[in-house]
Amino acid sequence: MIDKSYNFQLSENFIINNFLKKLNLNKTGTFNFGNDAAYLNTSKKNKTVVTTDTIVENIDFFSQDPPESIAQKIMCVNLSDISAMGALPKTYTLNLSINSTIDKIWLKKFTNRLSKIQKDYNIYLLGGDISRSREISLTVTCFGESKLKNIIKQNNSVAEDDIWVTGDLGNSYLGYKILKHRKLKIEKKHFNKFKNLYLYPKPCMFGFKASKYINSATDISDGFYGDLQKILNVKFGAKIFKDSIPISVDLKKIMKNNKTVKFSELLSWGDDYELIFTSFKKNRKKLLNLAKKNKVKISLVGKIIKKNGIFDDSLKLIKNISSFDHFC
Amino acid sequence: MIDKSYNFQLSENFIINNFLKKLNLNKTGTFNFGNDAAYLNTSKKNKTVVTTDTIVENIDFFSQDPPESIAQKIMCVNLSDISAMGALPKTYTLNLSINSTIDKIWLKKFTNRLSKIQKDYNIYLLGGDISRSREISLTVTCFGESKLKNIIKQNNSVAEDDIWVTGDLGNSYLGYKILKHRKLKIEKKHFNKFKNLYLYPKPCMFGFKASKYINSATDISDGFYGDLQKILNVKFGAKIFKDSIPISVDLKKIMKNNKTVKFSELLSWGDDYELIFTSFKKNRKKLLNLAKKNKVKISLVGKIIKKNGIFDDSLKLIKNISSFDHFC
Repeated sequence: MIDKSYNFQLSENFIINNFLKKLNLNKTGTFNFGNDAAYLNTSKKNKTVVTTDTIVENIDFFSQDPPESIAQKIMCVNLSDISAMGALPKTYTLNLSINSTIDKIWLKKFTNRLSKIQKDYNIYLLGGDISRSREISLTVTCFGESKLKNIIKQNNSVAEDDIWVTGDLGNSYLGYKILKHRKLKIEKKHFNKFKNLYLYPKPCMFGFKASKYINSATDISDGFYGDLQKILNVKFGAKIFKDSIPISVDLKKIMKNNKTVKFSELLSWGDDYELIFTSFKKNRKKLLNLAKKNKVKISLVGKIIKKNGIFDDSLKLIKNISSFDHFC
Repeated sequence: MIDKSYNFQLSENFIINNFLKKLNLNKTGTFNFGNDAAYLNTSKKNKTVVTTDTIVENIDFFSQDPPESIAQKIMCVNLSDISAMGALPKTYTLNLSINSTIDKIWLKKFTNRLSKIQKDYNIYLLGGDISRSREISLTVTCFGESKLKNIIKQNNSVAEDDIWVTGDLGNSYLGYKILKHRKLKIEKKHFNKFKNLYLYPKPCMFGFKASKYINSATDISDGFYGDLQKILNVKFGAKIFKDSIPISVDLKKIMKNNKTVKFSELLSWGDDYELIFTSFKKNRKKLLNLAKKNKVKISLVGKIIKKNGIFDDSLKLIKNISSFDHFC
C-alpha cells in the first residue's frame, strides 16, 4: 500500500456490489466475494483454495524498489490470504507485465527471490504469462489445500469470541514513513530494520496450523481497524484492549521520540500481513501452546461484542463500523 | 495482438528458459511450461486445468475499444487455451487494473458482456482483485476440468499425423487491417463483418469434445505458422496443403481486390482463436462426424513429417523451424 489517494471515483466495494456480485451466480465456493479467497469444488472433502492479487508500479511499489522486494510483496499478499483461509499453499501462477526497464539482472534477482520463497513455503510455479506494458504490474494466483471443514470464513464470529492478533503491528507503517520522510529522528540500525520490514514483508502462516480453533480470520492488509471491520461485518462490534496491541519495543521507543509516528495511524495502515482471528474463549490455552510450538507470537487484543462499533477498554467509541466488502 | 514491435530486448522464450523454468521444480502438471495450460493435481483421475492470460491497454487492445470487446478478448484467450488442453471450462478469476477513465457505464457494458459469456460457456466468476493503475490491464485465470487421460499435450504428435484446423483463418487479421488502414477498398458490409470478427473473437471449444481423437493441439493466438511450430517442437516438420487452408469466400474476394491483404501475413497473424490439432489418419471419419454434430468446421490442412521445417505440397520450404516455447 503506497498511494491510496489516487484520483479514483469508484471504490472497490462499489464495483463489487454493483457489477461483479451478479457474476458469481451464488456459487458456494465464491463466498459471495466476502472472503480472502475462494475455493474450487475439486472433491467433496478437500478443496483447492484460490486467491489472486495484482500489484502495480507506483501504487503498490516504487519502480526503483529492489526486484527482491517486489517478489516478496506479490508472494506475501497471496500467501497471507491462503493462510487467512486456513489452507496450506501448494502452487501459484505468475503474470508478469514488464517494460523495457526490466533487464537480465532484474529478472535474476526477482526469480532468485521467488526461488527462495518457494523453498520457504514448499511451493512451485505452475505456469503464467508474460506481457509487455508501460508500467510494471504483477499478478499471482495462489492455490492452497484445505479440508472443507477447516476452511476459515471471514464472518463466522460469535459474541464473546476472543480477538487475537499474530506478530507485531506497525512495522511496515514505520518502514514506509521513514522512507518517505527522511527527517524522522531515528537510529541507523532502526532505519535499516524497519525499512526492511516494509520492503520484505513476511506472511504469517499460522492460519493452517490453527484453523480448527479459529472462528473467523483475515490478514492485515488494509490496516488493523479496516480488517477487523471485515470480521465484524456490520453484525457485531469489538472491544479492544489497547494496551495489548502488540507493538515492538523499538517501535514504542521511536513513537515516544517522534510525535508524527502515531498509534492511530499505525492501526489504520495496512501491509502488516499478520492475522486477526477470533476464537472461543475456551481455546485460549490450546492456541497459546500451538503458537509457542510454531514460534508464532499471538496476542489477545479484544473480544467480540453485540454492540456495533469498535470500542476501547472503557467502552469509548474508537471507530464506527461501515460495511467492508472485499473481492477475494 | 496489436503492437509486437514495442521496444523490448528480452523475448518471452528467453525469459522462460533462463529465469522461470527453474521455478517449476520439474512438477508434472507444469508441462515444463510447454503447453497452453497446466494442471492442479486435485485427484488421481480428474485434473483441474489452469490457464492465465493478461491483456494490456495499447498492446493487446486500444483504450477506446468497446468494453464489450475487451471482455470478449480476455475471456476468449483463456477459454481457447482451456479448449486446446481438451478441458471443459468451469470457473475463472478476474484481476482488473483500472484507471480513472473507467466509469459506471464502462463497467456495466464490460460486466454485461462477461455475464453473456458466462451463459454461453456455463462458467461463473470465482473471485478476483481490483487495482488502480495508469494503464488498463486485465488478467483472467481460467479453470477447466478434464480426465488425466484426456488432457491434450502440445508435443504429442507422431509422423504421418493429420494436421487439422478449425473454422476459418485470417478474419481477425483482416479486421485489424481495415481498422488500421482505412484506405482499404472494401464494401460496408464486409467492413463491419471483419471489424467485429477482430473485436469480438470467439474461442473454438472443440478441444474438449474431440480430445480422445487428438494427439496434439494448440490454439491459434500467435499465427498459424507460429502455433504450428509449437506442435512440431523442433522434433518434426509439416507438409501443408496450401489450398486446403480454410479462408472464407469473402476474405478470398477481398484478397483478390487488395494486394496488401496477403496470404502469408494472414498465416503469421494471431488472434484467430481457432485450434490446430493433429490426429491419427484412422480418425478422419470420426472427427468429421463429431465436427458436423457439433457444428464446427474442420479442415485437413497437412501432415506431420519427419523432416524439419514447414513445407508446401511440392515440399518447397515455407518456414524454418525455430524453437518456440510458450509460458502456459
